[in-house]
Amino acid sequence: MKSLTELQDFFKDGYKHYLPFLTIDCAIFGYHDQQLKLLLVKNKIIIDWCLPGGFVKRGEKLDEAAGRITQERTGIKNLFLKQFKTFGDPGRNLYEKFDKQKFADLTGIEIQEDHWLMDHTVSIGFYAITDISNASPEADVFSSECAWFPIDNLPELAFDHDAMVKEALLTMRVHLYHFPIGKNMLPEKFTLKDIHAFYETMIGKKLNPSNFPNKLIALGLLEKLDEKKNIGAHRSPTFYRFNTEVYDQALKEGLVLA
Amino acid sequence: MKSLTELQDFFKDGYKHYLPFLTIDCAIFGYHDQQLKLLLVKNKIIIDWCLPGGFVKRGEKLDEAAGRITQERTGIKNLFLKQFKTFGDPGRNLYEKFDKQKFADLTGIEIQEDHWLMDHTVSIGFYAITDISNASPEADVFSSECAWFPIDNLPELAFDHDAMVKEALLTMRVHLYHFPIGKNMLPEKFTLKDIHAFYETMIGKKLNPSNFPNKLIALGLLEKLDEKKNIGAHRSPTFYRFNTEVYDQALKEGLVLA
Repeated sequence: MKSLTELQDFFKDGYKHYLPFLTIDCAIFGYHDQQLKLLLVKNKIIIDWCLPGGFVKRGEKLDEAAGRITQERTGIKNLFLKQFKTFGDPGRNLYEKFDKQKFADLTGIEIQEDHWLMDHTVSIGFYAITDISNASPEADVFSSECAWFPIDNLPELAFDHDAMVKEALLTMRVHLYHFPIGKNMLPEKFTLKDIHAFYETMIGKKLNPSNFPNKLIALGLLEKLDEKKNIGAHRSPTFYRFNTEVYDQALKEGLVLA
Repeated sequence: MKSLTELQDFFKDGYKHYLPFLTIDCAIFGYHDQQLKLLLVKNKIIIDWCLPGGFVKRGEKLDEAAGRITQERTGIKNLFLKQFKTFGDPGRNLYEKFDKQKFADLTGIEIQEDHWLMDHTVSIGFYAITDISNASPEADVFSSECAWFPIDNLPELAFDHDAMVKEALLTMRVHLYHFPIGKNMLPEKFTLKDIHAFYETMIGKKLNPSNFPNKLIALGLLEKLDEKKNIGAHRSPTFYRFNTEVYDQALKEGLVLA
């Protein structure tokens, strides 16, 4: 949705194309150079940072909707997405937080409390993880900015999005122990130190250096290559890569890493 | 909801009291004597087994709705409930699976495709775990039976409930590694063998006998008592109990057991 006309159509007739009660909000985590960040958008109407999100289209599958919304904000197709929790308690409707004047200035529409957008909505939270360097954050017509924030230095978020981020982080960190991760975030070949640093960043705390790497090797997820990284006279750690077959199966079936 | 009058009111005016698009389905796992079971209801209208569920009331919190629904079917207040996944893909509406004649016989109402109950619904899946001996399964006016089934011998379920059970089991089993469990399912004092057997039943496979017990002790979740179980001449394993303070904190914050 780009133009003002489209925006006006959306406000007028959006309920015909979208389920007016059902939104998706996405916690898109970005990893790069041992830093974990979160993608946020600054909403033009409520003038606050929040998670990228949108309504689910009629006839659209939930995973498709989450894929569409994350692709629109990051430019990345087929992000690996997982649900973390659904939020639908009373009091999450938009109306009270809404700057009606700002909205009228922006759209030329005066919005009333009985407008379809002001109904109670239930939002399904999905999280995704990407290499920051693969993403091209892009604001849409509802937002003035779209930017990465360090996970330990987030602004206060609108609605119940602070609680969403907390749940997304908790779920993502639990999943680190049960699903393989890293295929699109580490280079094709990497050292055990690289993958250890990656897990420490994702979990957000120091880990026993051998824990994840050893378990990944034991489960056949990592393959040792016949090649060493040359980083100095007496230091030449071996390169590893993911075993794609084992990795893809573990994504489906889950495993126990710890 | 017990009487036919209430049922008729629900079909006529239910959308005034319930969110017509939002249901909750509950995978209620029951543990007893090293057996894991699942509570199912036999729906009178679609004539098939399914998970206990219901609509969310207007103004009701999601956790409250899940608590109400599980209490109605089990008689247990304050079951420990956790979301596992939300289901809302197109094609989950009731109409095609609906025996209109059966429904008319049961209720005296002829239902049409534009009836509020035939709309697209999104269902939030919650799972709970209880000691089977604490529960009193009770059918409601929509169901002819409510009964426990062994987890490895379930009947085929209606709607997308087979997929729900699969997700509920996967999530519950992942959570075993990250949240304490067992307080209302094991006796107040138990042996390490008891708790090992409990985890094996929940996970559904053989485990290294020391894995969970040792980790639980290391994290302070189990306290050794100054008392032994007398089960024969040379066999007197020590009793343990949960440390309630550590247990309750770990429920909130999560941990890593493996």
